[in-house]
Amino acid sequence: MIVTLHSHISITEATSLAVSLEGEAVQFEGKTLLVVSGKIKKLPARLKDLASDFQVMDNDMQLSSKEFVEKRIVNIAGSNVGSDDKTFVMAGPCSVESKEQIDSTAAYLSSLGVQFLRGGCFKPRTSPYSFQGLGREGLELLRSAADRHGMLVVSEVRDATHVEQVIELADVIQIGAKSMYDHGILRACGKTTKPVLIKRGFGTTLQEFAQAAEFVLCGGNENVMLCERGIRTFENDTRFTLDLCGVAFLKEKTNLPIIIDPSHAMGLSYGVADLARASVAMGIDGLMVEVHCNPARAKSDAAQQLDHNSFSSLYTSLAPVAASIGRSIQ
Amino acid sequence: MIVTLHSHISITEATSLAVSLEGEAVQFEGKTLLVVSGKIKKLPARLKDLASDFQVMDNDMQLSSKEFVEKRIVNIAGSNVGSDDKTFVMAGPCSVESKEQIDSTAAYLSSLGVQFLRGGCFKPRTSPYSFQGLGREGLELLRSAADRHGMLVVSEVRDATHVEQVIELADVIQIGAKSMYDHGILRACGKTTKPVLIKRGFGTTLQEFAQAAEFVLCGGNENVMLCERGIRTFENDTRFTLDLCGVAFLKEKTNLPIIIDPSHAMGLSYGVADLARASVAMGIDGLMVEVHCNPARAKSDAAQQLDHNSFSSLYTSLAPVAASIGRSIQ
Amino acid sequence: MIVTLHSHISITEATSLAVSLEGEAVQFEGKTLLVVSGKIKKLPARLKDLASDFQVMDNDMQLSSKEFVEKRIVNIAGSNVGSDDKTFVMAGPCSVESKEQIDSTAAYLSSLGVQFLRGGCFKPRTSPYSFQGLGREGLELLRSAADRHGMLVVSEVRDATHVEQVIELADVIQIGAKSMYDHGILRACGKTTKPVLIKRGFGTTLQEFAQAAEFVLCGGNENVMLCERGIRTFENDTRFTLDLCGVAFLKEKTNLPIIIDPSHAMGLSYGVADLARASVAMGIDGLMVEVHCNPARAKSDAAQQLDHNSFSSLYTSLAPVAASIGRSIQ
Amino acid sequence: MIVTLHSHISITEATSLAVSLEGEAVQFEGKTLLVVSGKIKKLPARLKDLASDFQVMDNDMQLSSKEFVEKRIVNIAGSNVGSDDKTFVMAGPCSVESKEQIDSTAAYLSSLGVQFLRGGCFKPRTSPYSFQGLGREGLELLRSAADRHGMLVVSEVRDATHVEQVIELADVIQIGAKSMYDHGILRACGKTTKPVLIKRGFGTTLQEFAQAAEFVLCGGNENVMLCERGIRTFENDTRFTLDLCGVAFLKEKTNLPIIIDPSHAMGLSYGVADLARASVAMGIDGLMVEVHCNPARAKSDAAQQLDHNSFSSLYTSLAPVAASIGRSIQ
Repeated sequence: MIVTLHSHISITEATSLAVSLEGEAVQFEGKTLLVVSGKIKKLPARLKDLASDFQVMDNDMQLSSKEFVEKRIVNIAGSNVGSDDKTFVMAGPCSVESKEQIDSTAAYLSSLGVQFLRGGCFKPRTSPYSFQGLGREGLELLRSAADRHGMLVVSEVRDATHVEQVIELADVIQIGAKSMYDHGILRACGKTTKPVLIKRGFGTTLQEFAQAAEFVLCGGNENVMLCERGIRTFENDTRFTLDLCGVAFLKEKTNLPIIIDPSHAMGLSYGVADLARASVAMGIDGLMVEVHCNPARAKSDAAQQLDHNSFSSLYTSLAPVAASIGRSIQ
Repeated sequence: MIVTLHSHISITEATSLAVSLEGEAVQFEGKTLLVVSGKIKKLPARLKDLASDFQVMDNDMQLSSKEFVEKRIVNIAGSNVGSDDKTFVMAGPCSVESKEQIDSTAAYLSSLGVQFLRGGCFKPRTSPYSFQGLGREGLELLRSAADRHGMLVVSEVRDATHVEQVIELADVIQIGAKSMYDHGILRACGKTTKPVLIKRGFGTTLQEFAQAAEFVLCGGNENVMLCERGIRTFENDTRFTLDLCGVAFLKEKTNLPIIIDPSHAMGLSYGVADLARASVAMGIDGLMVEVHCNPARAKSDAAQQLDHNSFSSLYTSLAPVAASIGRSIQ
Repeated sequence: MIVTLHSHISITEATSLAVSLEGEAVQFEGKTLLVVSGKIKKLPARLKDLASDFQVMDNDMQLSSKEFVEKRIVNIAGSNVGSDDKTFVMAGPCSVESKEQIDSTAAYLSSLGVQFLRGGCFKPRTSPYSFQGLGREGLELLRSAADRHGMLVVSEVRDATHVEQVIELADVIQIGAKSMYDHGILRACGKTTKPVLIKRGFGTTLQEFAQAAEFVLCGGNENVMLCERGIRTFENDTRFTLDLCGVAFLKEKTNLPIIIDPSHAMGLSYGVADLARASVAMGIDGLMVEVHCNPARAKSDAAQQLDHNSFSSLYTSLAPVAASIGRSIQ
Repeated sequence: MIVTLHSHISITEATSLAVSLEGEAVQFEGKTLLVVSGKIKKLPARLKDLASDFQVMDNDMQLSSKEFVEKRIVNIAGSNVGSDDKTFVMAGPCSVESKEQIDSTAAYLSSLGVQFLRGGCFKPRTSPYSFQGLGREGLELLRSAADRHGMLVVSEVRDATHVEQVIELADVIQIGAKSMYDHGILRACGKTTKPVLIKRGFGTTLQEFAQAAEFVLCGGNENVMLCERGIRTFENDTRFTLDLCGVAFLKEKTNLPIIIDPSHAMGLSYGVADLARASVAMGIDGLMVEVHCNPARAKSDAAQQLDHNSFSSLYTSLAPVAASIGRSIQ
């Protein structure tokens, strides 16, 4: 339930009310709101005199729900992610591996017109006995490659120990599939205004996914995007199962921009182009694709990254698909 | 393994060899083939003098594998399903409910240009206490509605007790998701030449799916199509999860035409159009959509069927999406 | 909803009512019942004068629900499966392969005191290029081996084409995981009084599982048992995932005897004994285990069958586990 | 691969080798080991002169593998978890809610003989609008309740921001299902010697689960236990699906003590006792059960917690089950 408080109530009073109700106080469009559990269906007695309005939602979603606000647009350095006529492409290698590697990819992608450069520096690897990413050093290489080519940086935070570094150096803070329940990260991201891209956990329901966004939204950061990247199912001939039914649900129920990452879903380079075109035809706000200058030698996710030739051919094919549903590729 | 036998070996001899090897004998493009388990990687000794050639496959697929034949085209009354530039639409109600209902839908769909009329008569309902379909009577209503409007009939067989009736009256025999392991049905479909559309079971792996096709192919019927219609996953806010990663796999590995049914996957009418466009953008051979003249009163699957207005608007939107990848909607 | 009709209403009248309501008429303990969809929560108007009583269920289960009858006991040649103090063991090879094989297994098992001999004759194999079972011939070998050693026969029906043969020759008709939605089989089993053991499909929900039993129960056969044998999940280091949470649910909600098959769930012989003991400790009515005289040479499911030594050691260990919860092994 | 280095090689040299090979150096039983990726099957050239021995594993497991060491026993204040004849019970409320609540539960449990008191203080709740736990304050209440009653504390760390607090105050650091990929937590736990109990993520494969343990083991902490608590499947009538096939796999392949938590798996109090007995009959090292003095008023997981009466009755029933397989309940 979202309760709009009378305007004379200060945010301090609201916060103390929130604490007592196990909810959260948040400011939105000049109003002070109190958000309490979706299980509460009646206005709590003690709020009767303090509330000017309240709204009970159908789902567990609150600030992320279309019932609250029809649509949120995330402005990233002038790019409006979430506007109805554009689909943004985010591309780059799984991991930042060296200055040369990330520079050459940035040069290549910017020459095509891609604005968002992705690259992992703190890798959430399953095994401790594999490349764990270059950390802070990689983040600086990524930042400077992007700056040199006029691109924006998307990079992943793995755990709460380095979230401030990613907030400092990236333009979009990516919360990975394995980290999306991490309160330490989510709370830190709620306190910045930098855009946050949350990837759906591979074992995460759509309701839980939206609630990860709630942690950031109720912290005060309105710039949240959701990214579907495949869920884990019984099918193992592909790495994960891209859940486009879930995307249809999120488009219908949430007010957040939606990004799709076909690379992690498929896990195999041969299917990425078809899935990318299918994703664009869904009318989504962004597409994230892994591209590497030499996939066979990539230090992580070698099987799924596209080489430059394959990516060029995919990228060219996206514009007509987008146009067929009234969008343009950015 | 697929073994090509010397031309002097009769099909009777081949069949008896097949029995002794727990394999199958089949004729293909004038040759007699012996297909044995994919686990056998070396030519069996007793075949040494009888074989002119043999091929070991990577997967459990054999006759359905791209390694055997690049592509199969299924000719249905002049429509070539599987040719690279066409995507066929199959539409109609979940169940045939009455003469009026199926006639009005047939009239409507044929006026749009849809060639394939689908309708269920033997319904594989979960509960015995719900509408089980009109059976033979429904099949005759469907046949005559299709004939009146120059359409082709797609209808489902539920179990082996009535497979002959569907073979007799339909143009395309649909084997449903719950029936696709049914040897009684698969063996009967192997003996006809009528086209067979096999729906993937919601708990079925891609390898198992292709092997259901093997039963029909090795029976001698080369006209097999595969239909992805959603798998069962932990996500329950949508009815099933449409597996487009699986479709990418099937396109890469099998030689069979691929159809997608977004209606059953989503289970909710609101997502069907987006998923249909995504499916077409994958470059598939056919699209199957449930359409009902009055979904709210449908006797089965009420939540997911499109009404005529929604379907018209979807249908119109498909042509530009198909064109954007070099195909036309049929 | 289950409606008890006034005693003056004939079964013919009841059946015609059932047809008009898309329900089923059934006789139970001298009463005539009309079972209609669980979605109907109010007594239909036309039944007002005909009903002496009615009961609305919580779940989709009706005749199988504990709300209808607390417990059903299935008497199989004097063995009461479902009585609170006994757990019956059903054992035997995956497939009947030869007279020698099934005889030696029957001799061995009966010497231990096992009463139920299982063996597959119509095998629902995934691939057409593998051993499909000995069919009718196997069934006769199984019958005669059981008769020679005073055992009862459990054998599987694969599809509707041979259900009558299994009804004729087996003591318990097993409906396999891949066949449990098959109306042809379920309807045929509803017309006999022979006990039916339904295995849960690996992609089947508990509600759907119970509804397969409803098909048999409403056909008039009260002798139905449910068998959990593992569901398909993302985990692939074991063949399936034995769902004991599901067993707890079935014990709480249904009135049917419950059997567990750990062999198919695990798919690997090393885990079968531990899972068998866990199953017995759940307080179930029966345990089904695959045993083969020479697993390495088995024609199907070689990896999961126990050899005689392993089975003896498992069998001996079951009695104390059963005793610890107040049951005995039969 | 695990490489045993010659004894003259210092740990500093080993660590620098490890860095260059993207592996880890660790000391074990007086030897210095270098662990590198399981994908490396041949001894790297530069190690030829430095290695006295090396071992290639079958699985992705290394230090956690039975191939490395048969069995690890975790000594917790004198209790040997992992010894073949004992099963330890860990019980307590989902959340520490107040001094009174945790004291009364501790008094109750210690009176039964339960040694391990569990209680959550940093709750990984899905929604920000629900009780998030008492944090540090709760941890101190839990510690002092346990101390007063001579019990050991098991408590969960939610994210890396407070891992040091849990290490400081708990006897067993529980890493929750949603946090088990968290490198910040895992690395911190590798640096202490306090026992760590890792819960399997509900979307986590068995191989990934064991690899979470590898992070702690290769950090130098040998006191790791694995806890199965249910995985997410298509079945939704129970909260999760307890994966006892997975437990059989872990018992066969890993050297770590195994704990089972039936409360979270079932999510409903009615099934917990049956599942607990099944778990004990598997021959596991520990059982974790949620107990609350008044479940209906619990601030989290109300549906699944047992009240004192139900727990007493369950607890009493465990001893004979354990005895039936040669173990005792501790």
